[in-house]
Formats: sequence, C-alpha cells, structure tokens
Amino acid sequence: MPIYNAPLKDMEFILNDVFQAEQFWQGNENLAHLDMATANAVLEEMAKFSKNVILDLNRPADEEGGAQFNNGVVTTPKGFKEAFRQFAEGGWVGLGAPEEWGGQNMPKMLTVLADEMIWSTNPSFMLYPLLTVGAGMAINDRASQEQKETYLPKFYTGEWSGTMCLTEPHSGTDLGIIKTKAESNEDGSYNITGTKIFITSGEHDLSENIIHLVLAKTPNAPAGSRGISLFIVPKFLVNDDGSLGERNAVSAGSIEHKMGIKGSATCVMNFDGAKGYMVGNENEGLAGMFVMMNYERLSMGIQGVGAAEFAYQNAAQYATDRLQGRASTGAKSPEKPADSILVHGDVRRMLLNVRANNEASRAFAVYVGQQLDITKYSTDPEAVRKATDRVALLTPIAKAYLTDKALDSALEAQMCFGGHGYIREWGMEQCIRDLRISQIYEGTNGVQAIDLIGRKTTKCNGAYIAEYIAEIREFAQGLDALAIKAATLETCQQLEDITKFIVEQSKLNPDFANSIAVDYLHAVGLLSFVYMYARISKAAAAKDDSYFQNKLVLANYYVAKVLPDLSARIQRIQAGAELVMQLPEDYFTAQA
Amino acid sequence: MPIYNAPLKDMEFILNDVFQAEQFWQGNENLAHLDMATANAVLEEMAKFSKNVILDLNRPADEEGGAQFNNGVVTTPKGFKEAFRQFAEGGWVGLGAPEEWGGQNMPKMLTVLADEMIWSTNPSFMLYPLLTVGAGMAINDRASQEQKETYLPKFYTGEWSGTMCLTEPHSGTDLGIIKTKAESNEDGSYNITGTKIFITSGEHDLSENIIHLVLAKTPNAPAGSRGISLFIVPKFLVNDDGSLGERNAVSAGSIEHKMGIKGSATCVMNFDGAKGYMVGNENEGLAGMFVMMNYERLSMGIQGVGAAEFAYQNAAQYATDRLQGRASTGAKSPEKPADSILVHGDVRRMLLNVRANNEASRAFAVYVGQQLDITKYSTDPEAVRKATDRVALLTPIAKAYLTDKALDSALEAQMCFGGHGYIREWGMEQCIRDLRISQIYEGTNGVQAIDLIGRKTTKCNGAYIAEYIAEIREFAQGLDALAIKAATLETCQQLEDITKFIVEQSKLNPDFANSIAVDYLHAVGLLSFVYMYARISKAAAAKDDSYFQNKLVLANYYVAKVLPDLSARIQRIQAGAELVMQLPEDYFTAQA
Repeated sequence: MPIYNAPLKDMEFILNDVFQAEQFWQGNENLAHLDMATANAVLEEMAKFSKNVILDLNRPADEEGGAQFNNGVVTTPKGFKEAFRQFAEGGWVGLGAPEEWGGQNMPKMLTVLADEMIWSTNPSFMLYPLLTVGAGMAINDRASQEQKETYLPKFYTGEWSGTMCLTEPHSGTDLGIIKTKAESNEDGSYNITGTKIFITSGEHDLSENIIHLVLAKTPNAPAGSRGISLFIVPKFLVNDDGSLGERNAVSAGSIEHKMGIKGSATCVMNFDGAKGYMVGNENEGLAGMFVMMNYERLSMGIQGVGAAEFAYQNAAQYATDRLQGRASTGAKSPEKPADSILVHGDVRRMLLNVRANNEASRAFAVYVGQQLDITKYSTDPEAVRKATDRVALLTPIAKAYLTDKALDSALEAQMCFGGHGYIREWGMEQCIRDLRISQIYEGTNGVQAIDLIGRKTTKCNGAYIAEYIAEIREFAQGLDALAIKAATLETCQQLEDITKFIVEQSKLNPDFANSIAVDYLHAVGLLSFVYMYARISKAAAAKDDSYFQNKLVLANYYVAKVLPDLSARIQRIQAGAELVMQLPEDYFTAQA
Repeated sequence: MPIYNAPLKDMEFILNDVFQAEQFWQGNENLAHLDMATANAVLEEMAKFSKNVILDLNRPADEEGGAQFNNGVVTTPKGFKEAFRQFAEGGWVGLGAPEEWGGQNMPKMLTVLADEMIWSTNPSFMLYPLLTVGAGMAINDRASQEQKETYLPKFYTGEWSGTMCLTEPHSGTDLGIIKTKAESNEDGSYNITGTKIFITSGEHDLSENIIHLVLAKTPNAPAGSRGISLFIVPKFLVNDDGSLGERNAVSAGSIEHKMGIKGSATCVMNFDGAKGYMVGNENEGLAGMFVMMNYERLSMGIQGVGAAEFAYQNAAQYATDRLQGRASTGAKSPEKPADSILVHGDVRRMLLNVRANNEASRAFAVYVGQQLDITKYSTDPEAVRKATDRVALLTPIAKAYLTDKALDSALEAQMCFGGHGYIREWGMEQCIRDLRISQIYEGTNGVQAIDLIGRKTTKCNGAYIAEYIAEIREFAQGLDALAIKAATLETCQQLEDITKFIVEQSKLNPDFANSIAVDYLHAVGLLSFVYMYARISKAAAAKDDSYFQNKLVLANYYVAKVLPDLSARIQRIQAGAELVMQLPEDYFTAQA
C-alpha cells in the first residue's frame, strides 16, 4: 500500500525560517490571533487526518469505480461520507473562512500547507470541500447580507455544499458564448434554464443541500463576457426559517467517466427553469466568479505539490528497498545479492529532480499564499497594491507551472519503480491519472500562460514582473557568498531582457504572445523557483543541522540540473511566432 | 469515437523519397523480391485492417476491464480472437520472418511502418503477435534445426504463440540474480522451476499452444549473467508428429492490473518442474535473448510513434472543429460564434510539436530499420560491420527517445482537448495510459540511456557516434542552401564536443556516465532528429507540391522550437555527477 507522512518539518521550516510567518502574523492586527505553536498544531492535526483517515480511502475509491450515478442520484465512494463528517466536525471546511460565518480565519499561507496534505492523500475527496470553499468566497464577496446569512454558516458546518457552474458543452475557455438563460420572476427570483458540464460535486451524498453558483445570461444582456450574471441555485429551496423546502428544478443528468479523480463526481447539470437568485449586479457575474479564481487556481497548484510529494515519498522508499545491480564504484552492500538502486546516478537524478521541484513548489505556494494574505488582511494600501499585482502576476505560475512540474515529477517518480510503477497496486499510476486534471481544469495551463503574458505582462508593459524582479534582486544582493546568489541575479537579468523583448514583439505582431506564452510561463516559473532557493538557502545556512545543510546541496542541484531549461525557453521565445502561424489551417488535418 | 487514418502518403514519401527504398531493395540480392508497388500494397492492406478491424476493439477492451483471469484461464477482450484469426490468415505474424518457415521475408524498414498502424489503433492487440515474433527470432537464431521445424511454422500461421520469460519478482533489470532453476533429465530435457512475472501473453485464448522462452540457471552455473541458459517450455508438450501432447507444468498464477494496455494479459507464470528444452549452449542464454532485443526495442519505439500519430490525428481534428475565442488578429470566422482554436498560437505550438516529433520519429524508425536490414541481408562485410555498430548505437535512441517524445506528444495532444481530453470517451487518456508502458518495459528508458552511454559510447571511446556524426556531416554538407544545413552541422559539432567531454569524465569518475546518461540520450536523439529533417528536407525540396513544401516549414519549426532543448541537455551534462551523488542514501527517505 502507498505510504504518506506529512512533511511537517519542512512545512515548519518554510513558515518559520523562510518566511518568518509568526513575525508577519503578529505584525498584522487581523492575524495576531495566530502564532507558530497554533499553526503547528493545525498542521499536526491535518497530518493525522490525512494519513489515518483519507489515505486508505483513496485507492479503493479508484479501484471500485469512483462515484456512482443512478437515476440522478450520486453515491460517493466507500468511506467518504464518514470522512467528510469528521472533516467538517474538525472545522476544516471553514479553515480559511471568516469567523463571522463560522470559519477559523486562518491565513492562506497556512491553509495551503494543510490543503497539500489532502491533495497528497486523497485528491478526489479534496474536491468536495474545495468547491464549497470557492462558492463561499464568491458569496462572501458579492452576495447580499441575507444571502450570506442563509448560505455561509451552513457551508462551514459541512451541512450544505457548493459548486461553480460555468462550462457548457460548447463553451469552456470562452465563457462569452454561454447559452444558459435567466428569466426574471415577479418575486425578484429568476428561472434558470440550460445545461452545464464538468460540474465538480454537482450532485453527491455528502451534504443535505447543494448550492450551485451559476453563470447565465438575462434576456437583454450584452453579447460576450460583459453580459453574464451570477446566480445562486439551490438543489433544495430554502425556507425563510432556513429549513429545506421543495426540490428545485436542477438535477444531474450523468457523471463523466474520467482518466482519474474518479471518486469526485463530475456532473452534467440540467437546469430546467430552476429557481435562482442573482448575486451582485446584473452582467457583472464573471467578475464575481473571478474573485475566487486566484484562490482556486493556487489550490490547483497545491494539488500538484501534494501529488508530487506523495509520488516522491513512495519512490524514495521503493528505491531504498529495491536491490538491483551494483554501484559503478563497486558493491556498496556486498553482503546482499545487489545494491539498493539508490547507488545509480540515474535513479538519484530522478529523485532529486522531484524533490528539488517539490521543495521549491511548496515554498512558492506559501509565498503566493502570503501575498494573498497581504491583500486580504493588510491595512497598508501600498502593501495591498503591491501584493495585488504580485498575486495577479504569480497566480498563473502557481496554477500552471506547479502542476506542469508536478506531472513531470510524478512521471519520474513512477519511473523509479520500473515495471512496478505501471501496476495499479503501487498507487503511482493513480497518482498520475488524478494529478493530470490539475493541468487542465480551472483554465488549462495554456490559458494560464496566455493570462500571464497578456493581462499580466504585455498589458502593463512588464510592470508587474519588473517589481517582482526588483524584489528578487534586492533579496539576492543581500545574500552572502552562497552559490545561489549569482544564479539568482543572472536569472533576473535574463528575465528582464526577455520580457522587454516580448513587450516589444507583442506590439509588432498580435500572434506573438500567444505562440510563446507557455515558454514564458516556464521562464517565470524558473525565476520563481530560483528565488525560492535563494530564500531557502539563506534560512538553511542559518541552521546548524545537516538536515537543513542538505537544502543548500539541493539548491545547487536545482541551479545545475533544473535551471538549464531556461536557456531552451529563451531560445524558443526568441524564435518568435512566424513558424508557428505560417501554415494554413487545413495543413493540420490534411490526409497524411 | 476516436479516428485514425494511416499516414500512407508520408510513409511512401519516407520509403521512396527519403530513403530510396526500392533502389536499396533492388540492389540487394536478398531483397530483390520487393519493389515499391508491393510495399505500398502491404501498407494499404494494413491500413484497412488497422482502421476497420482493430481500432473499434481498442476502447471496449479497455472499458470492459481488459483481459480476464479465471482459475488459470485468460480470456482476451471481445473481438480479439476473430481479429487475430484474420491477422494470422493475412500472413501478418510472419511478415518479417524467413520464407523457409512460412514468413514473408519483408525487410524491417517496411515492417516498422505496418507495425506503427497497429500500435496506433490497438496496442494491446499488437502485443500478442509481437512476443511471438520475438520468440521466433530467438529460436531462428539459436535453436536446433529440429526445434526450428517444430515451432517456427506454427508461429507464423498463428496456431501457436510465444513469450519471453525473463523477469522475476526480485530480478528485473538485474537478470544476473534470477532464481529459476533448470535441472537436467536423463532424456536431455530439463525440469524448470521458478516464478516469472510481467510475462506478456503468458496465457491467453488466441492460440492452441504457447511456447515460453525461459531464462533459468542450471545447478552449477556461474553466478551472475554468465550463468544463464535459455529454454523452450511449451504450455502443451509437442508429440513427435507435431500434435499437442500433455499439459506441461506451467501455468498463469494471476494477471496484473495495470495503468493501461489492459487488453494485453500480463501474467505471473509459475513453472513447477515444467519440462523444458535448452536452446543453444548452456550459460549463453542471455546472449540468445539479446539477439532479438534490438528488434524488440525498436518495436517499443514504434509503439511510441503509433500512439503519438493517433494522438495527433485526433487532436488536430478536435482543434479544427472546436470553436472558442477569437484570433488575436481579429475574427477569422465572423459568421460563427467563435473561431476554431487553431487560430491560437499556443494550440498550434502543441500540434506542431507533436507533428514535428512524429515525422522525425517515423523517419528515424525506418532509418534504424534499414540499418537492421543491412545487418541481416547485406553481403558486404564492411557494410554489415558499420550497420551493426550503428544499430548498437541507435537502438537505445529508438526505444527510449522515441517513447519519451511520444509521451510528451500524447500529453500535448490531450491538452488540445481541454477538459474533454480527460474524459474517457475521447480516447486520449487511454492513449496515454497505453503508451506509458513503452518507456518502462524492455529495459526502462533510464537503462537504455545507460546502455547508450556505457557499452555504446564510453566503452568504444565514442567510435560508434563518431562514425554516425561523420555520416550526418557528409550528408549535411551535400545540402544546398536549406536552413537545416547549418543547424545540422552545428548539432554535429556540439555532439562531438560533448561526447569527448563524457569519454574523458567517465575515466575520472565511475559515477559520471550513469548520472547524466538520460541527458546524453536526449542529446543524441536531437541530433538524430535533426539528421532526419536534413534528409526529409532534401527529399521534400525536390518535390513540387505544397504538401511536401510544408515539410520544409516543419523542419524549420523543429530547429527553432524543439532543438533548443539541446542546450539545456548539454549544460546538465557539463554540470556532472557530483551534486547527484553527494547526498547520503538516508537523505532520500529521512522524515521531512
């Protein structure tokens, strides 16, 4: 059976030593309730829950076919109901939610670490509360006081759950062309009619009610994305006293059969004149949805970190135990029939690649979490402005770069198992199948890259990244003779140069940015990870313990063995768009 | 449902224009029976079989759970039995086998293309005849005349099938530590006892008898790989008149539950004193197995090409049909609600990456096939010597580089589908699951890289690659002003330099080669693909047709957008082994 132990020591190191979390919390009146002891206690509790409760439900949920659909009713996998009850009773649904509505008001830089453990041990399970958290965030931001009072407390007790209904069969990335209609009733409510697909947790048996947040168009709405409104559509209508009323005209038509996350019910939802209530202003629904997008997209990045950590732990254990061949330098364990495969450079290469990406990914998630916390909790307008820009810049990295690197990592970890990695019982292949969706949903990684290079870079003439590079440079210049210093400064220069090139080229050729967006996203990802290693190195160098001293070796490994990808990315960007765009459309399907 | 149309036009172009196949065949007395018309007819027949017969069996075989095991009996998926009968009656099992035993004696440079179509449409199906072909090759090379007469004709009619039994639970890459025993009987036969795992087609219902080729150790055999012998162990013993006799003491204990290729039965085989017959000389069994390894490993590369071609065709069709968003340069189809996603540079980038790798992969497979044909059919000793060295060098590339690039390609193709790529009905996720094994079996790609850098490079001081580079240089220098010329010559120089560095460093540090082997494998892969584009470009430039002229664009795309990976690979090689090896073994599992 797959193993998992939460990396608590690394998590504490990142919070405490790399980002001086306690100092940050105590210096902020809205977070002064939190200290490291409490944060560690939270993480220790989640470490137990993830290892003792949901890890063992993960493989059976996949093996037994996942969520089941029968006549509009969805049954979640064995054990999910009881585990979710425990999860809700532990207050985990509202871990980051406002105390006012029953949440625990924990900052994102802590919740990302708790979330990582759930992603490591049972990603299908994680998706049930995740959508509730997202829906709660949108309601908290945009809904009326009455709507908040009606729905939010029920979310954080786990009695009710939420969904986000955006996609339609013909409309995914391009939400401007959705067809779902909202026709107003005399009582101020709306009748919602249409079909939504890929609705995570659209129907299930974990909660008494399901509150759908639905994008739809009112009759005379402007065309495109400026004519979309947001509606609350409950599965059961809610009586004035808060009790459940009649069943609304919304139902699951089927669930998807997927590559992975089979325990998560991905539903086709049919709205047949279902009663809905507008949230916020008419035609401003998309903005309402995007309120929580920065948070959700970071969560997908954490899915990557969690999966890659799980993959690493299992691969490292397997490699330690598996005896095969002899070291190039002579037998290391002559008393055994063969040496552990850890003696082979190629096996170490794979494990170090995974670990180097994991440690930087985790630090980066906490860094972005901290920026989100500044936007939410800080009272300093300039700090909020800076953090808001930083979050805008880095959200696509957090979503796409972390999940791209996570898939690479999980694949390398699987390879450490040889043929056994392909056999289901080891859990590695499920890890890859479950992880793969993180690159696709919440905006594909290609769409993230286009967001990064468009709205976040060329549109502001590179201002966001310039400010980011300035921060990194300042940090690096303050480092002592650590080897990482030179690499960080050089990477800053390379990113500055290539960004300037991109901003210029984009003005000359409208196709330029889109055609090299993913390469730029990876370039900014590499810069970000070098920055994380600069921060990790500084913190580790201050600790007199081989466990932390080894982090300096890993940082050097990163620079020597992972960072070289930057030169390839830059060359591709410099090669431009022409060769990408010049072939006619019918070239692609012309009969070969 | 997934689509597939065999790329016959490209296949003919590669055979006829790129490699002047007919001239090669007609110039060789042992191949003079073959002309392009016959070759095209063979490919057209296989195009029909793959599209009309086995494609439709592929998804059901996966959806319905694959091969089924009940009490030692394996049932293949619905339709496999009838399809295999058709396949065998069409003479496809013996397509490349000697006419003497009922084969069709077709050269490898043709059979790789036929094989590709089966890999595209039904990889699980392909594995049944593939192992028979491999076993037949080993028997043809090493067995006695009587053994050949007994088994080979039955293989090529499809009445009997073959397996290769190497791996044991504790012994995969390291075959030197196998435990299966062979004790001699007075009649010259042996009793074979042991457990073999991961035995493809170890048990099934497609043939009347199954002939296992088994590696085992005789009682006083030397330790390690020099003490391994090869045995024929039939499922049913064969009477003197060739009819089936009693059931032998070999049986399937279970089948594996895998990530993919679920239609292929991967068996645990128990040998309980089963009667076996030695093939070739005692203690020379491993060499017997390796006879067919060069062929089998190329087949795994073709699995990659086939899967990536299937993925490409489906992704290109989906991208053409899917309307979403608008072109950066303004609406391309203003009459429609949105443009085809082919207007987006990032979608084109993905499709072109896949296609650029596919076309080079296919050409490379034919190139290596031709080299194998020279070793088999040529009467010129120097040509045979050169081709033998070339095959030795390039087999790891054909196996590992082609499958590594194929997985990258299939993943990019899946991404073109957005969320739909994650849904089983589109067939993309199965393609990836089925393909993944090609990087793992027949020696993991890491093991291939170590073979390349060890036995094939440092051991001969780089002689094999020097001769390969000389050939490429000579070819490139003969090119006219094509842009590919400079890139090819520069890549030759880079590979020459880095190979020299590797040969030197390997002498100084025994861990060096292993730790950078995969990077070197990819560097040689990139050189090989640039070489293929040099050859494709020359052939395409001679044709006055936009279909072929577009290949020059694709060649330039390859140089601009794919080849830059070389600089990253070289940097990693230059960074050496130290950072890979310096951490202690317990670092990897120390509790984080």
